[in-house]
Amino acid sequence: MTKKRVAIIGAGPSGLAQLRAFQSAADKGEEIPEIVCFDKQDNWGGLWNYTWRTGLDENGEPVHCSMYRYLWSNGPKEGLEFADYSFEEHFGKQIASYPPRAVLFDYIEGRVKKAGVRDWIRFNSAVRWVNYNADTGMFTVTVHDHAKDHVYSEDFDHVICASGHFSTPNVPYYEGFESFNGRLVHAHDFRDAREFSGKDILVVGSSYSAEDIGSQCWKYGAKSITSCYRSAPMGFKWPDNWEEKPAMEKVDGNTVYFSDGTTRDVDAIILCTGYKHYFNFLPDDLRLKTANRLASADLYKGVVYVHNPKMFYLGMQDQWFTFNMFDAQAWWVRDAILGKIDLSKVSKDEMMADVKERETREEADDDVKYAIRYQADYIEELVAETDYPSFDIDGACQAFYEWKKHKAEDIMGFRNNRYKSVMTGTMAPVHHTPWKDALDDSMEVYLRN
Amino acid sequence: MTKKRVAIIGAGPSGLAQLRAFQSAADKGEEIPEIVCFDKQDNWGGLWNYTWRTGLDENGEPVHCSMYRYLWSNGPKEGLEFADYSFEEHFGKQIASYPPRAVLFDYIEGRVKKAGVRDWIRFNSAVRWVNYNADTGMFTVTVHDHAKDHVYSEDFDHVICASGHFSTPNVPYYEGFESFNGRLVHAHDFRDAREFSGKDILVVGSSYSAEDIGSQCWKYGAKSITSCYRSAPMGFKWPDNWEEKPAMEKVDGNTVYFSDGTTRDVDAIILCTGYKHYFNFLPDDLRLKTANRLASADLYKGVVYVHNPKMFYLGMQDQWFTFNMFDAQAWWVRDAILGKIDLSKVSKDEMMADVKERETREEADDDVKYAIRYQADYIEELVAETDYPSFDIDGACQAFYEWKKHKAEDIMGFRNNRYKSVMTGTMAPVHHTPWKDALDDSMEVYLRN
Ligand SMILES: Cc1cc2nc3c(=O)[nH]c(=O)nc-3n(C[C@H](O)[C@H](O)[C@H](O)COP(=O)(O)OP(=O)(O)OC[C@H]3O[C@@H](n4cnc5c(N)ncnc54)[C@H](O)[C@@H]3O)c2cc1C
Ligand SMILES: Cc1cc2nc3c(=O)[nH]c(=O)nc-3n(C[C@H](O)[C@H](O)[C@H](O)COP(=O)(O)OP(=O)(O)OC[C@H]3O[C@@H](n4cnc5c(N)ncnc54)[C@H](O)[C@@H]3O)c2cc1C
Ligand SMILES: NC(=O)c1ccc[n+]([C@@H]2O[C@H](COP(=O)([O-])OP(=O)(O)OC[C@H]3O[C@@H](n4cnc5c(N)ncnc54)[C@H](OP(=O)(O)O)[C@@H]3O)[C@@H](O)[C@H]2O)c1
Ligand SMILES: NC(=O)c1ccc[n+]([C@@H]2O[C@H](COP(=O)([O-])OP(=O)(O)OC[C@H]3O[C@@H](n4cnc5c(N)ncnc54)[C@H](OP(=O)(O)O)[C@@H]3O)[C@@H](O)[C@H]2O)c1
Repeated sequence: MTKKRVAIIGAGPSGLAQLRAFQSAADKGEEIPEIVCFDKQDNWGGLWNYTWRTGLDENGEPVHCSMYRYLWSNGPKEGLEFADYSFEEHFGKQIASYPPRAVLFDYIEGRVKKAGVRDWIRFNSAVRWVNYNADTGMFTVTVHDHAKDHVYSEDFDHVICASGHFSTPNVPYYEGFESFNGRLVHAHDFRDAREFSGKDILVVGSSYSAEDIGSQCWKYGAKSITSCYRSAPMGFKWPDNWEEKPAMEKVDGNTVYFSDGTTRDVDAIILCTGYKHYFNFLPDDLRLKTANRLASADLYKGVVYVHNPKMFYLGMQDQWFTFNMFDAQAWWVRDAILGKIDLSKVSKDEMMADVKERETREEADDDVKYAIRYQADYIEELVAETDYPSFDIDGACQAFYEWKKHKAEDIMGFRNNRYKSVMTGTMAPVHHTPWKDALDDSMEVYLRN
Repeated sequence: MTKKRVAIIGAGPSGLAQLRAFQSAADKGEEIPEIVCFDKQDNWGGLWNYTWRTGLDENGEPVHCSMYRYLWSNGPKEGLEFADYSFEEHFGKQIASYPPRAVLFDYIEGRVKKAGVRDWIRFNSAVRWVNYNADTGMFTVTVHDHAKDHVYSEDFDHVICASGHFSTPNVPYYEGFESFNGRLVHAHDFRDAREFSGKDILVVGSSYSAEDIGSQCWKYGAKSITSCYRSAPMGFKWPDNWEEKPAMEKVDGNTVYFSDGTTRDVDAIILCTGYKHYFNFLPDDLRLKTANRLASADLYKGVVYVHNPKMFYLGMQDQWFTFNMFDAQAWWVRDAILGKIDLSKVSKDEMMADVKERETREEADDDVKYAIRYQADYIEELVAETDYPSFDIDGACQAFYEWKKHKAEDIMGFRNNRYKSVMTGTMAPVHHTPWKDALDDSMEVYLRN
């Protein structure tokens, strides 16, 4: 019998978790399928692979990166640590709790370098189309190899879609946008906060991007920040030059009108209005359609596509936990493919019931602590069914609860706090410089603790 | 026998010319195939369909529009007039020679409204993939209908690709881009010149976009314009606050270094570095690979794909002439599909020889007048082989030659000149306001002559 073939779409944290999961099984002497991971970028790391480019990339592909130049982790690193590869193992010491992007990129990369899986990845390779052939029971994956400007197709027994869902911007229209005289940009294309130094800016939205991009611009010298919300204010104790307003109604020239009748003249509007799950390489029968929520639609155990259980999705949930959740999923998917978890015993109805149960449970309460706990339970559930190292997930929840408290106390200072690793038990050091003064956020400077 | 089916990809000026070509044959009582035109935008007009959006559009598709808010025709309208639908017919009077975008959009639209072909177009329909099946001799076109979020496939006897080639930006990297502290944008994403009022800007490139975007920013109050060239300067008599420099070498912070050892601090860098022919919906055997030149690679008569003569391309050449050249091509392609022009008699070798001959002839001289005449000859050649109304193409060339002279005399004033229509013989009026003072360029104001 020839080896099974598995295609992984994306070499971001989720796809890399999948590579590491298979490699760790191989390491233990298990036989694993042939793995081919496709990524349209020229390097791994997904969103963490920073680029100054916006719009379309050097290959004409939509730029995947939504991160910006001075991005620091918005949650404590103690909530996302890999159970099989601690920060201490990677950096040779414990580091402060809110690492900048470059530091986290280095950490993500460290584990997969050690695992030696880079050869499994085909870079500059955009997946153009995936088909499932009922006759053969195989998927045909069509790929554009940009290095050779060559399109080819290969067949696979399984497809694991790990292409992320924070790269296709949701860009609403408001009256007057077509004649706004300033800079109008979605968070996805926001890059260097210094561009807005001395400017009056408006951030639209009241979630993580609005909070963090506003904060960045404040840190790097914006003259004033106005933020506006559709549903509810963020409600932090903002600095003096930050004002929170209700919904934007329209724009006229450079003047923005809000629903409370007030107006504000701004130089730039930054739309922090979220992202869409978007798969331009999938036909109707394979394409996930879901909102950005904790219980994704149509995914049994959060990973198996109920309409074709040979197809898997990773990381499609909204995220409190990130890297270790992707790991829990990847180990579980690996075992389903290896047959250690037997999906043939689960009927479609049972799968749908599982999805429904998760949805109902998510909707039972809209408290933040409940939501964090909910996702922690999900990770625990998956971890229990594989050999992924189990870890003190209650401890990780505690870090998140404290983080929430720290943000409420001091939104421009919460990143000066520290937490204890649930993997190694070590307390993080206090960072050498308060976040607001740490203008140089290179890895070299950050690690000087 | 069932009717032939023809797919047209794109409802820009080229695709619309194709619809009009078939409709005019039907009007004369000829039997025409079933025509389905797909456009990913929600309206026709191609690049002329302006949007404030940049990057990805409301459907997650790359934004097609490369035009900007205050764009005026950069060549005289007398060089692009439709032979079967004059400006006078459309506007009820002769209008000035360099219409703004909205006026030309209205003109383009006028002809196809009159032809009644809107029903042939499926909007919000992105072509995802095209396959040629040698067994059946048919093409399978796979389309994402965004209105229904539904992907489907249909078979066609012919595919006419009219998807344009000025929408995928060519974005070079220069040292320091990743840490530039200002606004860094390609012409494709440039929209509102007022954003740059009071700013020091650099435009990179020495072709039409560089010239026109620099001029726009000058008109709308940029503090200074620096432009830089890789091969040759534009060499116009620039205003006092415009300086032309040789090649950019690198960027450091906000400082740009040029190859002559000089530097300049700028707030924004606008990359006017051209576009790529880009077809993310075509496999290797159907995908045109060509430079942006007058003699496109691999297109017999500039339209028939030599590697599969059932496939056609429109408007893939670099353009002096536009709308009437697309017409000449569309009428010719129509007749090839209707069998009035018999392609079965032309061998692949003959097709390749035709391409080669066009290339050699293009390369024979690099004089601008020669190039204009070359493209005029091409149009004449095609027009002679169909019933497209022949017109005084020598007269149109004269308009272009004068235009060149007017630009050399006064780069900020050339749009104040006027030319004679070769379709109706009428002289255009002088526009009521010099271009540099005409800040309101709405259709209403423009037509007030
Ligand atoms: C602005 C922002 C800030 C964030 N900050 C944090 C943070 O501080 N801490 C945290 O834990 N999480 C953060 N996140 C959450 C983030 O989602 C995860 O950290 C993580 O990057 C998700 O990993 P992923 O592999 O699922 O997806 P991604 O990181 O998006 O990776 C997907 C990969 O798929 C590839 N791909 C996509 N389409 C194709 C295709 N057609 N063909 C081939 N390859 C393709 C992409 O190139 C990419 O490499 C942030 C997210 C955003 C948007
Ligand atoms: C900045 C700029 C300024 C210009 N100014 C002038 C001018 O002043 N005068 C002039 O005569 N010419 C000008 N041009 C030249 C321009 O190329 C032509 O005027 C004309 O728009 C070309 O028409 P087209 O139909 O070939 O391509 P486009 O106008 O580009 O239209 C292509 C169409 O194909 C659609 N499409 C693309 N991909 C897909 C897909 N996968 N599925 C479905 N639909 C798809 C697009 O949505 C679009 O509607 C300018 C060009 C640029 C870039
Ligand atoms: N490391 C970091 O510091 C960092 C920074 C940014 C983002 N991130 C991550 O990136 C991910 C995405 O976060 P996000 O904030 O971009 O998206 P998000 O959490 O989905 O939030 C979207 C926001 O946009 C608003 N919105 C949507 N449509 C709107 C409309 N038409 N008009 C006005 N407002 C509208 C929503 O308002 P409603 O509430 O009314 O729906 C919501 O406030 C998260 O995982 C986050 O953790 C991390
Ligand atoms: N209506 C209007 O007013 C208007 C306005 C803008 C554009 N247009 C149309 O749009 C089309 C495209 O014009 P365009 O000017 O965008 O493209 P273009 O004519 O292809 O010119 C590209 C320019 O970019 C330069 N370039 C390319 N790569 C570079 C690099 N790596 N570094 C530095 N320079 C680089 C080229 O320099 P080299 O010469 O060295 O190769 C050239 O000057 C044309 O049809 C034009 O008529 C019309």
